[in-house]
Amino acid sequence: MTVLNDKSHRRYNPLLGEWILVSPHRGKRPWQGQQEAPQTNHSVSYDEKCYLCPGNTRITGDVNPNYTGTFVFPNDFPALQADNDNDSSDDELFRYQSAKGEARVICFSPDHSKSLPQLSEADIGGVIDTWREQMNELGQRYQWVQVFENKGSVMGCSNPHPHGQVWAQNSLPTEAEKIDRNLRDYFQRNDSNLLLDYVEREVENAERIVELNDDWAVLVPFWACWPFEVLLLPRFAAKSFADVSPVQQKNLARILKRALTRYDNLFQCSFPYSMGWRAAPFSGDANDHWQLHASFFPPLLRSASVKKFMVGYEMLAEAQRDITPEQAAERLRACSIQHYLENQ
Amino acid sequence: MTVLNDKSHRRYNPLLGEWILVSPHRGKRPWQGQQEAPQTNHSVSYDEKCYLCPGNTRITGDVNPNYTGTFVFPNDFPALQADNDNDSSDDELFRYQSAKGEARVICFSPDHSKSLPQLSEADIGGVIDTWREQMNELGQRYQWVQVFENKGSVMGCSNPHPHGQVWAQNSLPTEAEKIDRNLRDYFQRNDSNLLLDYVEREVENAERIVELNDDWAVLVPFWACWPFEVLLLPRFAAKSFADVSPVQQKNLARILKRALTRYDNLFQCSFPYSMGWRAAPFSGDANDHWQLHASFFPPLLRSASVKKFMVGYEMLAEAQRDITPEQAAERLRACSIQHYLENQ
Ligand SMILES: O=P(O)(O)O[C@H]1O[C@H](CO)[C@@H](O)[C@H](O)[C@H]1O
Ligand SMILES: O=P(O)(O)O[C@H]1O[C@H](CO)[C@@H](O)[C@H](O)[C@H]1O
Repeated sequence: MTVLNDKSHRRYNPLLGEWILVSPHRGKRPWQGQQEAPQTNHSVSYDEKCYLCPGNTRITGDVNPNYTGTFVFPNDFPALQADNDNDSSDDELFRYQSAKGEARVICFSPDHSKSLPQLSEADIGGVIDTWREQMNELGQRYQWVQVFENKGSVMGCSNPHPHGQVWAQNSLPTEAEKIDRNLRDYFQRNDSNLLLDYVEREVENAERIVELNDDWAVLVPFWACWPFEVLLLPRFAAKSFADVSPVQQKNLARILKRALTRYDNLFQCSFPYSMGWRAAPFSGDANDHWQLHASFFPPLLRSASVKKFMVGYEMLAEAQRDITPEQAAERLRACSIQHYLENQ
Repeated sequence: MTVLNDKSHRRYNPLLGEWILVSPHRGKRPWQGQQEAPQTNHSVSYDEKCYLCPGNTRITGDVNPNYTGTFVFPNDFPALQADNDNDSSDDELFRYQSAKGEARVICFSPDHSKSLPQLSEADIGGVIDTWREQMNELGQRYQWVQVFENKGSVMGCSNPHPHGQVWAQNSLPTEAEKIDRNLRDYFQRNDSNLLLDYVEREVENAERIVELNDDWAVLVPFWACWPFEVLLLPRFAAKSFADVSPVQQKNLARILKRALTRYDNLFQCSFPYSMGWRAAPFSGDANDHWQLHASFFPPLLRSASVKKFMVGYEMLAEAQRDITPEQAAERLRACSIQHYLENQ
């Protein structure tokens, strides 16, 4: 597999059915472009101006309770509305449909200063419980429930208080639809689950594994698009959180804390990313082809202040990356699993 | 079409075959997140430290000629390599192929301070000539030739000297492949060209048109993803620049100058974007389904310093926009076609 290490090549993402361009030799180019403000870990546990801290008043006038674990409330500016008439057009060139849904905010902790890797395994377990409950509850009414987190101002996050979101909707969004189609095709061709097959081949190969335990693997996928992108996969059949046992959930909290600590340690900063969970669509259809998974898309490339830009060529033609997934995995494996702030 | 103005809905992009989520009501939410450094127009015509200015030495030791129009040279850190062995794997889960190609830089003008809308129509004509020549030359050897420009540091551009790039390669990149498939399907179903049909329906409707002349239209597409995204379309059949007459090319220079001046005037800054041309793939196949077009993807949303973040939900599920394409077109039409710096 010579071309994979040092020559320009394309790799295929079997989940999305899309190729990406890899340019391993390009990591050496100097960077004179934009510098990001490095994301710092915040030091105050309570900020009176933060609209997510316990006891504070939000823009709507609502007052947050004095919550001690996680806290969920409806997004004050939801991108999806529930009270929405049915309306659509099938005109080939002007096709549209109404989108009904709900959007909520999930505070991970009352402590303003602690991001996920800084929480205890027990508290991360509480966050997983909340993800699970939200998906279960909203899944009764909506076909797709997107749990996600934007971490860091470089990822459009406007408040450092540790929080994520959940958007639920009556239709399968574009990326989910691609994944559904590709997982189904693979299942019909091979009579097995793509992501279950994949995770075991990665475990065997070891090269792209970042963290591993009996139930879960965190790896840089062969087709990773962002420099330090990782995929979190169960090593057992699980269409959704409903198939995750208490022991498996404990192991999930454990692997999350370890992997995200490596992230923070890589450039000694609060490592920014967008992450999200994907589970089988909530509909009556058979979905043995599905497998629960989480993706982490971090923008940083070279340091806490230099990110990868997915622009021109990438927007018009094809996603492109400079360092290889194998190099990225190696660098993440070389990081400590003790958080850098704990040593100070 | 009530849902289109004020309720959450999805619109279909018939070029990519993908949906996007539109949340018209969401424009009102306050922004407390990251501020970008506004992109200023630069005032010096020559910068001795710029590696693109005439007469200066590049990192390779090569010296730029004293060029007076455009100037093209091979990218010193190309993402694509020409000297690359054939190598590939069809393993379903680890599929790859070598990518052969070339990357070049195109300086638009010797003047360090002038971006495209500030050049004369004649000089913009010279840039179009260069785009055309590059596509023609590289198209002899490669299947896809991607001409593009990243403008502004917020779009990953590391040098303010007006320039673009061209990347040529031996395979059809992901986005081009989607467009090829969708244009072909439409052609087979309707026996006509999707983009030619589309442009005339938009001209008739007028609502999303930003600039129009006998040969070209600049419009905010019905399915626009970025807040002020525009599509530049010929109003005549043209698979590539080879089908553009001298008069039509003059009208292209004219409409480009006018549309890009509106962009700069919108927030009184050097409006950042990624833009690029797509033409029929260079191969022996029949491609009457193709139509030359340029897309402009600008990141700004509310002001010169607040951009739209395509993050969490967008990366995991579906592209999302706040203001509607119709509102964006209206705001661009309200801008002057005299550049704001000319009044000073
Ligand atoms: O080649 P440049 O201008 O240094 O680099 C810029 O454009 C490229 C093509 O869109 C991207 O891959 C890079 O991330 C971006 O910084
Ligand atoms: O809802 P927020 O956190 O204000 O907004 C952020 O996340 C959303 C969902 O990914 C994006 O649409 C916004 O562009 C981003 O700024």
